[in-house]
Amino acid sequence: MENGKRGVSEAAVKRLPKYYRQLCALLAEGETRVSSDELSRRMRCTPSQIRQDLNALGRFRQQGFGYNVDALQNGIKAILGLTRDYNIIVVGAGDTGRAIVNAQKFLQPRFNIVAMFDVDPALAGIDYRGVPSYHADEILTFVQSNRVDIAALTLPKEDAPDMMASLTAAGVTGIWDFTGSDLQPGDGAVVESMDLTESLMMMSYKINHRKDLP
Amino acid sequence: MENGKRGVSEAAVKRLPKYYRQLCALLAEGETRVSSDELSRRMRCTPSQIRQDLNALGRFRQQGFGYNVDALQNGIKAILGLTRDYNIIVVGAGDTGRAIVNAQKFLQPRFNIVAMFDVDPALAGIDYRGVPSYHADEILTFVQSNRVDIAALTLPKEDAPDMMASLTAAGVTGIWDFTGSDLQPGDGAVVESMDLTESLMMMSYKINHRKDLP
Repeated sequence: MENGKRGVSEAAVKRLPKYYRQLCALLAEGETRVSSDELSRRMRCTPSQIRQDLNALGRFRQQGFGYNVDALQNGIKAILGLTRDYNIIVVGAGDTGRAIVNAQKFLQPRFNIVAMFDVDPALAGIDYRGVPSYHADEILTFVQSNRVDIAALTLPKEDAPDMMASLTAAGVTGIWDFTGSDLQPGDGAVVESMDLTESLMMMSYKINHRKDLP
Repeated sequence: MENGKRGVSEAAVKRLPKYYRQLCALLAEGETRVSSDELSRRMRCTPSQIRQDLNALGRFRQQGFGYNVDALQNGIKAILGLTRDYNIIVVGAGDTGRAIVNAQKFLQPRFNIVAMFDVDPALAGIDYRGVPSYHADEILTFVQSNRVDIAALTLPKEDAPDMMASLTAAGVTGIWDFTGSDLQPGDGAVVESMDLTESLMMMSYKINHRKDLP
């Protein structure tokens, strides 16, 4: 699958967060320019891969100079959509839901967890690490009266499709799926999955192909 | 990056867990063969993508017949390394560590969580959902006297590199990184990351490129 407009491959898109991190680190170190060689060392891929990825994004490279760190960081930030804020709700206040709330301080400042919901009435009305918690019955009312961009789903997988349909109809555009239910994008909403089973399969693949890895 | 031996692209490798899931579902439905068209519908990509991916894996397609579901499922299972068992320890018994233990019942049966460790002495000696919990001081002794293939790291990110070095030296081959610390493979160990920040960046990318998506 190619991103038709820019010719950025799916694999290159998946490397963008890593580029962004490395460029933020370079800026923090006070670097104003960086070569393909240095970026390739930090990204653990070849300089030609770096040039191919970044050429597809735009004209960030100057012959004999390398890349302007600030311009490239800003370019990737814009492509990643990190020039605006996103409000997140967490659906399900079990271990996974609480782990997401706990991670708030490590997330990009553009992402704000604004509420958590659970079917357990005992959890309603209690703040968890500064995030207000409500009964699951109140989700749609909340989404209709507050801007919610992303819903992290940590409920049982069999309930995930219906919850996605309700939230999407109410205007949520991003479904962050922790349920392992293989939700598919649709009706204007995108899906990003954090799937332990798929991750473990990639792990066993890597363990069994260690010699093939860079 | 190409897998030189088989010519399977990095993007195709990342699709293997999804292929495996769909093939398991087809087997469960009693299907013995499947066409590129049907697989492409289930995988949400084009039939030519399917043929390209699977041709690179081996000769699984028979002209006029499509794919033999059982043979293809077994082939991908072997490539993914799912023909053996893996023992996992969970380092850190906070929300994330407990969420991993809770997920045990949804994981592939090849993956077994055998112990959890934490620096909190109050948690030592207590089983959590059937998984024994020990003090963090006992990790290396445990790893040296039991087969441990994978360590899920859910400790503070600043402690992750040292923990990875100790575990790798003791023979752990897979580091499952939940710390957001950008650990790099090395010394015979591979790293598979579950990174909330990178996942959210992919989410904002997808939200902002909704029209480009299939």
